Amino acid sequence: MADLGAAGATRRRRRATFAAGRGGSLVPMNGASAAACPSAGTAGHSGDTPGQKHGSPETARVNSKSEKHTWRSEKQSDVLSCHKTRESLLSSESGYNNYRGILNWCVVMLILSNARLFLENLLRHGILVDPIQVVSLFLKDPYSWPAACMVIVSNIFIMVALYTERQLSKGSFSEPVGLTIHCINLTVILTFPVAVVLTVPSVTPVGGAFALGIYTIVLLKLYSYRDVNMWCRDLSRAKAKNCPAVKSGDSSKVCYPGNLTIKDMYYFAFAPTLCYELNFPRSPKIRMGFLLRRLVEMLFFTQLLVALTQQWMIPIIQSSMKPLEDMDLSRMMERLLRLAVPNHLLWLMFFYWFFHSSLNFSAELLRFGDRQFYNDWWNAETVTYFWQNWNIPVHKWCLRHFYKPLLRRGFSKIVSQSAVFFLSAFFHEYLVSIPLRMFRLWAFMGMMAQLPLAWFVGNFLHGNYGNAAVWISLIVGQPFAVLMYVHDYYVLRYQ
Amino acid sequence: MADLGAAGATRRRRRATFAAGRGGSLVPMNGASAAACPSAGTAGHSGDTPGQKHGSPETARVNSKSEKHTWRSEKQSDVLSCHKTRESLLSSESGYNNYRGILNWCVVMLILSNARLFLENLLRHGILVDPIQVVSLFLKDPYSWPAACMVIVSNIFIMVALYTERQLSKGSFSEPVGLTIHCINLTVILTFPVAVVLTVPSVTPVGGAFALGIYTIVLLKLYSYRDVNMWCRDLSRAKAKNCPAVKSGDSSKVCYPGNLTIKDMYYFAFAPTLCYELNFPRSPKIRMGFLLRRLVEMLFFTQLLVALTQQWMIPIIQSSMKPLEDMDLSRMMERLLRLAVPNHLLWLMFFYWFFHSSLNFSAELLRFGDRQFYNDWWNAETVTYFWQNWNIPVHKWCLRHFYKPLLRRGFSKIVSQSAVFFLSAFFHEYLVSIPLRMFRLWAFMGMMAQLPLAWFVGNFLHGNYGNAAVWISLIVGQPFAVLMYVHDYYVLRYQ
Repeated sequence: MADLGAAGATRRRRRATFAAGRGGSLVPMNGASAAACPSAGTAGHSGDTPGQKHGSPETARVNSKSEKHTWRSEKQSDVLSCHKTRESLLSSESGYNNYRGILNWCVVMLILSNARLFLENLLRHGILVDPIQVVSLFLKDPYSWPAACMVIVSNIFIMVALYTERQLSKGSFSEPVGLTIHCINLTVILTFPVAVVLTVPSVTPVGGAFALGIYTIVLLKLYSYRDVNMWCRDLSRAKAKNCPAVKSGDSSKVCYPGNLTIKDMYYFAFAPTLCYELNFPRSPKIRMGFLLRRLVEMLFFTQLLVALTQQWMIPIIQSSMKPLEDMDLSRMMERLLRLAVPNHLLWLMFFYWFFHSSLNFSAELLRFGDRQFYNDWWNAETVTYFWQNWNIPVHKWCLRHFYKPLLRRGFSKIVSQSAVFFLSAFFHEYLVSIPLRMFRLWAFMGMMAQLPLAWFVGNFLHGNYGNAAVWISLIVGQPFAVLMYVHDYYVLRYQ
Repeated sequence: MADLGAAGATRRRRRATFAAGRGGSLVPMNGASAAACPSAGTAGHSGDTPGQKHGSPETARVNSKSEKHTWRSEKQSDVLSCHKTRESLLSSESGYNNYRGILNWCVVMLILSNARLFLENLLRHGILVDPIQVVSLFLKDPYSWPAACMVIVSNIFIMVALYTERQLSKGSFSEPVGLTIHCINLTVILTFPVAVVLTVPSVTPVGGAFALGIYTIVLLKLYSYRDVNMWCRDLSRAKAKNCPAVKSGDSSKVCYPGNLTIKDMYYFAFAPTLCYELNFPRSPKIRMGFLLRRLVEMLFFTQLLVALTQQWMIPIIQSSMKPLEDMDLSRMMERLLRLAVPNHLLWLMFFYWFFHSSLNFSAELLRFGDRQFYNDWWNAETVTYFWQNWNIPVHKWCLRHFYKPLLRRGFSKIVSQSAVFFLSAFFHEYLVSIPLRMFRLWAFMGMMAQLPLAWFVGNFLHGNYGNAAVWISLIVGQPFAVLMYVHDYYVLRYQ
């Protein structure tokens, strides 16, 4: 308030953004603000042109005047008449539209509301965080590590794929024989862990999901490996017919049969991508600072994810069982919305932990150059854009090895697109149902429901409304599926 | 997903805003993505200049190529090599900064969290809304309307001020006599309602606050009325000495003694301003649509304010009494944060209801031209800016009749500013303590605490941080004062 006068006025002028024109409907009747009386001095004061009537810089003008003139002249122009014809800022007629502070308001309100929830939770439940308990999610019997054994066994399938490709490159296997071996190999990769999880009782749901996740990644990688090597053979055969002598270029690059080494295979197996390539882009060196930051993030978010799940998710899920059993709709709704916030925050943290910290960590360690593991899905205005951009490795694989091959075989775009969603729905269900040993199709239906949702959002909602719809489907859809599975699991196991 | 190819790529290009340059630290080692093998076709594919390595429009380029070339050439450039050296968007090295979707996320999260709270409240308390109950806040005894009587009595003081000014203009009263009468009149306006509220037991706290508010408005208006008329006399005397003949100008304007009519006085009394002026700017006509919209808003927000207070505020306040008595700090904190959200939303609604709907309604009805009842305080980056802009009628009065006169009398800016805050603190306390019949100085201290807060925010926090600090002080400060008063009132009355 020390700068009540000029400084305040300039700040107001700097901040207030008024749209020009807009035909103000408050036309001054007797010349806006004039001096108290014509007899009281110089006939009125100047200014007051219609262009100025939307109330911005008149205070500044008056103040700069008052510096030059005496108090008596200020009294005439400023003190005796201090009103001016103008609209309120929130009237649509004012043309005002600067609500920058509202974003800050949203952030402050979110932090304060969640601080309250955090405090309420602590007061009600005490501290539930217990890092040791996490181990029990992976292990039932400390002398039996079925999930770890399964991951070690997966190396066999990798070696089978490499061996098959080597024989194919040498011509020892014909193409149909190679295709058959690959098909058998991939089928076993898909079914072997299912058999183990369903028959070995010491596999926990979390351990099973972990092993199945690894096997799914291996499956997609080996599928890509076989495809690319086949394309290379096709190309070199075509070259050999057309111009067999062209052998120029960078000597550091690996050419087709030269890539079929154990080292190359394992680089691909560990690289944060699902699409095979003979010469991956490489970064020049390992940046130790970058590596360390990602490592700290990984450790920090692992702890935080575990702590928040134990402290925040599990009490809500436990308290939701009763309303779900009773089919008490309004209470179910309340629990769903209550679960939505922690579930969504955990998902966001998981996203950052996996797609930014972990994948960048492994990429930096392997000097893998392509760090595009996600795109700007947070600005997605359509459901399609979200699914194309939140998980780039899977999206890239689907595009290269599934969607485009389907298009080349003459399928229409809409059929190919639905096939991609169907494949995705299959793997979602696969990764959830098998570890829980329970087939409910919630995950499958959740993924398939994206198709009509994408159609609806794409056709009826645009811009920020589309973006908000994508967020809502994320925030509400996930806890719905989580509650469904937990409820069914609970009913199946404990009743 | 129907537009997986070109359309998706252009959308990505349109959306992703990448800062130029920023010296990407992932320099490609073997020429970014090249074809699988130099022998496999045209020596690599073009593109891949360092300027493109921040991963934006390469998909678009590849797609436009694939339209012209055959599938075989697409296979070389796109399918065999699908990786490129680039940073993740969230890495600081990427220079990416488009988080527009985050605002939508904030809005969605706020709506969903509050929908949850709303549902929880309904389930726990049932429907508490009862419009009839509101009447009992104003009236204890339906045959005794003390607050309404006090408002009617206030006309006497208005007439006294008008009579005194008339006598002064005719010279019947000398200036010292006039000043004395005005001083007595204003003192009685300040003290009479206090005496009534403290002695008449049938005045309810809400009724008392209403009557005191009206009296405070009358006080400020009559102070301004006296000041402006005195300035007019000063001016006309000065004119009479210098150039007595100048009598030109607009005949529709009222000149000094001509304004001392009952009609003019009551126009000022009802006009939505505290600063008197001989010729208020007038709007040309009453816009019926505008008037109707404001009326509907007034009725709607009145209902909503009452309903939310009954349903949301009162249960929280009631449940806060126990922790406050026990001085249980963590539970008090939890209740404070729990109260902060509804209290703040009610304050925002009250702001809109009073400063936009009600004042614009009365202004439209009176064809009062100056609708600047508030400024863009929501963007305030300093506490000072907030206090200068959220309540323009009071701010204008303080500036014109208190702050500037103090400056002219030779007080420093900092002293005058503190005096304004002191005056404001006095009236805040006056409007709260008297109706509650309880002197605790929480409101006074709350206002005076704005001075060090303003100093702190002004000197240490800038831009969005300053704005967030202003919001936090609003969101947390108010419920703190509310809880203090309610607690003390509860302890005093019911224990």
